Amino acid sequence: MPVPKHIFNPPFNVVRCSHAVLRVRDLVASRRFYEDTVGLKAEDAGKDAIYFRGMEERNHHSLVLKQATEPAVERLGFKVGSEEDLDRAHTFFKERQLPAEFVDVPFQGRTLHATDTQGNRLELYFKMAQAERILQQYGHYKGCQPQRLDHFNVFAPDVQGSIDFYASLGFRLTEYSETDDAEPKIAAAWMHRKGSVHDLAFTHGKGPRLHHIAYWVPTALSIIHLCDVMATTGYLANMERGPGRHGISNAFFLYVRDPDGHRVELYTSDYLTVDPDHEPLRWSIRDPRRQTLWGTPAPRSWFEEGSTFPNVPVRAPLFEAQPIVAD
Amino acid sequence: MPVPKHIFNPPFNVVRCSHAVLRVRDLVASRRFYEDTVGLKAEDAGKDAIYFRGMEERNHHSLVLKQATEPAVERLGFKVGSEEDLDRAHTFFKERQLPAEFVDVPFQGRTLHATDTQGNRLELYFKMAQAERILQQYGHYKGCQPQRLDHFNVFAPDVQGSIDFYASLGFRLTEYSETDDAEPKIAAAWMHRKGSVHDLAFTHGKGPRLHHIAYWVPTALSIIHLCDVMATTGYLANMERGPGRHGISNAFFLYVRDPDGHRVELYTSDYLTVDPDHEPLRWSIRDPRRQTLWGTPAPRSWFEEGSTFPNVPVRAPLFEAQPIVAD
Amino acid sequence: MPVPKHIFNPPFNVVRCSHAVLRVRDLVASRRFYEDTVGLKAEDAGKDAIYFRGMEERNHHSLVLKQATEPAVERLGFKVGSEEDLDRAHTFFKERQLPAEFVDVPFQGRTLHATDTQGNRLELYFKMAQAERILQQYGHYKGCQPQRLDHFNVFAPDVQGSIDFYASLGFRLTEYSETDDAEPKIAAAWMHRKGSVHDLAFTHGKGPRLHHIAYWVPTALSIIHLCDVMATTGYLANMERGPGRHGISNAFFLYVRDPDGHRVELYTSDYLTVDPDHEPLRWSIRDPRRQTLWGTPAPRSWFEEGSTFPNVPVRAPLFEAQPIVAD
Amino acid sequence: MPVPKHIFNPPFNVVRCSHAVLRVRDLVASRRFYEDTVGLKAEDAGKDAIYFRGMEERNHHSLVLKQATEPAVERLGFKVGSEEDLDRAHTFFKERQLPAEFVDVPFQGRTLHATDTQGNRLELYFKMAQAERILQQYGHYKGCQPQRLDHFNVFAPDVQGSIDFYASLGFRLTEYSETDDAEPKIAAAWMHRKGSVHDLAFTHGKGPRLHHIAYWVPTALSIIHLCDVMATTGYLANMERGPGRHGISNAFFLYVRDPDGHRVELYTSDYLTVDPDHEPLRWSIRDPRRQTLWGTPAPRSWFEEGSTFPNVPVRAPLFEAQPIVAD
Repeated sequence: MPVPKHIFNPPFNVVRCSHAVLRVRDLVASRRFYEDTVGLKAEDAGKDAIYFRGMEERNHHSLVLKQATEPAVERLGFKVGSEEDLDRAHTFFKERQLPAEFVDVPFQGRTLHATDTQGNRLELYFKMAQAERILQQYGHYKGCQPQRLDHFNVFAPDVQGSIDFYASLGFRLTEYSETDDAEPKIAAAWMHRKGSVHDLAFTHGKGPRLHHIAYWVPTALSIIHLCDVMATTGYLANMERGPGRHGISNAFFLYVRDPDGHRVELYTSDYLTVDPDHEPLRWSIRDPRRQTLWGTPAPRSWFEEGSTFPNVPVRAPLFEAQPIVAD
Repeated sequence: MPVPKHIFNPPFNVVRCSHAVLRVRDLVASRRFYEDTVGLKAEDAGKDAIYFRGMEERNHHSLVLKQATEPAVERLGFKVGSEEDLDRAHTFFKERQLPAEFVDVPFQGRTLHATDTQGNRLELYFKMAQAERILQQYGHYKGCQPQRLDHFNVFAPDVQGSIDFYASLGFRLTEYSETDDAEPKIAAAWMHRKGSVHDLAFTHGKGPRLHHIAYWVPTALSIIHLCDVMATTGYLANMERGPGRHGISNAFFLYVRDPDGHRVELYTSDYLTVDPDHEPLRWSIRDPRRQTLWGTPAPRSWFEEGSTFPNVPVRAPLFEAQPIVAD
Repeated sequence: MPVPKHIFNPPFNVVRCSHAVLRVRDLVASRRFYEDTVGLKAEDAGKDAIYFRGMEERNHHSLVLKQATEPAVERLGFKVGSEEDLDRAHTFFKERQLPAEFVDVPFQGRTLHATDTQGNRLELYFKMAQAERILQQYGHYKGCQPQRLDHFNVFAPDVQGSIDFYASLGFRLTEYSETDDAEPKIAAAWMHRKGSVHDLAFTHGKGPRLHHIAYWVPTALSIIHLCDVMATTGYLANMERGPGRHGISNAFFLYVRDPDGHRVELYTSDYLTVDPDHEPLRWSIRDPRRQTLWGTPAPRSWFEEGSTFPNVPVRAPLFEAQPIVAD
Repeated sequence: MPVPKHIFNPPFNVVRCSHAVLRVRDLVASRRFYEDTVGLKAEDAGKDAIYFRGMEERNHHSLVLKQATEPAVERLGFKVGSEEDLDRAHTFFKERQLPAEFVDVPFQGRTLHATDTQGNRLELYFKMAQAERILQQYGHYKGCQPQRLDHFNVFAPDVQGSIDFYASLGFRLTEYSETDDAEPKIAAAWMHRKGSVHDLAFTHGKGPRLHHIAYWVPTALSIIHLCDVMATTGYLANMERGPGRHGISNAFFLYVRDPDGHRVELYTSDYLTVDPDHEPLRWSIRDPRRQTLWGTPAPRSWFEEGSTFPNVPVRAPLFEAQPIVAD
């Protein structure tokens, strides 16, 4: 595919992906999973919501769980560079007839609820409440010692359309996979703002749906320890894929499912992408090492299951593609 | 099954598993695999044979590859406690009408070639040529930095018979798996002499055949590095199973196939078993975590393929058992 | 020095070092250190004593802390091969006019209290109460995830005498350091029964005193994590030496002091020593890499401080030797 | 000290620190150190210069060594965002009467040689020759597997002046140490452009001099392996400080000296700093954990020795401060 031109002066400045807001059916069960097992810090917990963050995060939360009757993803949160960027974002969405309205969100203040061209529900804010620095409170480290939210991955019925939209917001393409046809069709794409491989990735499939959120962990051994813990504390069935090394991004990974089926990736050791002349990498969709460098295929659930946004209809993808599946 | 009584004063003293002698079709290809990729030291290499050892091994070799027209396992080598133990072993095998004869083997001197009740061809010796200490020559470390030979695993048509024979030689049972029937059938067993989980394991299946040899490596990261190396140096198809954590033995593992299909396990972090009152662990054959604590099944090839001994007929197992297979 | 001949049929069979009995002034403070920080499991805790064990240990305890007014080491515990070995040990000590008497010890039953030629107080037993297997209860892993007791190290005023005594009990010498004189003086020695570098080491100095007990941990990263935890939970002053790589034993190590000053080593990755023809390694006392392969000297406290046995007088060493000290 | 206001629209866009140009006396000895031991890739080597890069770097070089009669640091290289930024930088330096001239540099093309207010010699460029992607050529990984240049650290006689200058170029302060006086004096500062803890740090002392360059490595175990390798391949005396955990930056580190005394840090696991409202951390110069979280002091050489720029006079610092030194 033609690599989109990088926009160095986007209409508003998205700093990075910031947090996800997920609906769950049982906050107690979810807390046992995210706090006791994965190792996030529960920064604030009430009967309606729990706020979590990673060890190095000074912002109040990178994951919000809300009590609900059905699992869903409510919002994908992004931090912008200033209050003015929020206003510019509001103008941007409105000019394109995309939903956008300001709301007041606990711990975030003025927040822009907006929807992208694919139907993904976003929330943008500038300044979040700051929490105590716990990076060097090693006595409280648990689980796989998650450091920080790294990225979101969403199913996109129209990956090319998603790329074009986010490229217009200044997101940079770092890697992508496509068919080997004379007119290749894009299958997946990784785009960043913060200087890593991605803040947001698009996977070809029925959408809009959240494929997964990912936390950065210190080393591959943190992930192996989480496998050992999950396998022996009642979460064997929640281990979906990995551990392994991605060809794409070069990261070491594990995919797990939370008690409501939301998918979480534990992720480490990708690479720096801040250079303006950094060239994206192309992978053939037929190269098995793009998904797992070691050749192991992903299970069917990984290609098919995801979290929906409430009341947002899911559309079929623009074309059919055959995943390389384990079964 | 009834756990065999431990014999503290065996007829002769086997110290540990010591080395394997394998036939390969192309010594150059094998050396590229074992030395450049896995990281063993080629201690001596001629046009007919190569001798390898691990980083901590002071004995001359723990793996001997011989040039041949067909792949095969020639011998499984064990070190005994003294020259007198060799004579006692000779008597022992002869009294049971099992093949046993003394031969002179390079770097080992007087060596007893013997065959066990299952047809596995063994070689016993006391004193091997000693080689330079390289444990602290870290500049020469390569691949997954294999430290020492850890164990052999063989397909046994009669696992119970194998256990009984080796128990009579003072091997201790540490773990075993069996069916959940009213009269359980033994499916696999792990037995040791040196104080680890095993020197020799038996896997239910067509035999006698070698299932794998295993090298101890420093950490799980050594194994992950080997995966990355193999996947990017032309050995993607040689990665058969793992990495993962065994339920049985608790070891972190990877199974790879050498250029002739011989299976090699890289293995780390099992536990100490020297206590005379150490009790063996039972696993149900239906517990998926016995093979991989994380639940991932092994591929069919892992259950079916192995290395044969030249001119030794392979027998069907005494009963049929259903493996838990990935496909 | 002349390497002592290895006794393959010792007067009684010591299987391995098993446990230490230490006196402490504040069981609550000690438990916070050993359980919450180091990560041992408190198997049994009363107001007079706490019993700890490592993750892979199935015996009831490898460390016993007793409430007392003054810190001290009461006993160094060794497991023997059978009840008959206890009787043979009793005879052995009595014949040499060394103190030896049978006592009944909780969780150990019949136990022989004996004193070696240097004045170290020992306790020997055969069968300890067995505890639940927790090796694969990964959800309870904490601190540096100590797996098992590995060894004791004692200050010996007469290292040669200590070697001779324990060699007569079948302990094997694996490494030693000595002066470069025409008639070299032995400075330290490492001896084993269980097939690792040591169960018991002797360090030249005022004694009898306990230098340290050591626990085996999974990897160097376990030790680095403990450093991070101790430095940020009020134990900065308890970190005495390391982390680093020993030249001797090749192990990765850290030395910490418990709230009463008892020294604990966290230790990993030495090597297998079961071969009957395994040759001991000699180190010159002037080679800085023997202590730390990377050259870093140990602090003065490490050479001078240790735990005394109650009412056992401490003697000066037979000769003076200059340690290589950090200050 | 008053934290400098962050300039979001600097006069020209510095993307990141990019490369160092060092003079060495023996390219063969240096190559053995940087390529065979540390593990950098020698991308281009002639008789006058060698160009090195890390495993993930696609730019042609991050370290240039030039044959010379005396060791020195020639230039510290920074990548800017565009050719226009080079012109803006030229104007900026000229307006401040600071040396600045365009030169043509191999593999970099148009390059601005400029000198900062402290006398540090810089070189700025936009587009460097691109090299083959080797991140996933794991078969070529060596030494500590350095991934990418992370930062420079320079001795500054006037740390406050250095901060002010680089803050005016859009560098963000992330951490700093100062005295506890009523009017605190700044002792050291860490500033970034690329979203990590730093691209450039200033250490109070005689300058301008280069204190060290730092490469990012995958994990702490990579660093421990380098220690083992250096200690056993003739580089024992080149290991200056560490390994350890910095309080400041939270990074795991090792400092080594190359054959000419240039200091190189191997560095891993700091944290993300892209948020516009990210607050810098203050450390008291009397807190021993700022340098090493575990309390170990740095040796005197670490405070005193550095690499000079040719023909650039070294000035005494503005005030005297007492380092916390190991001897």
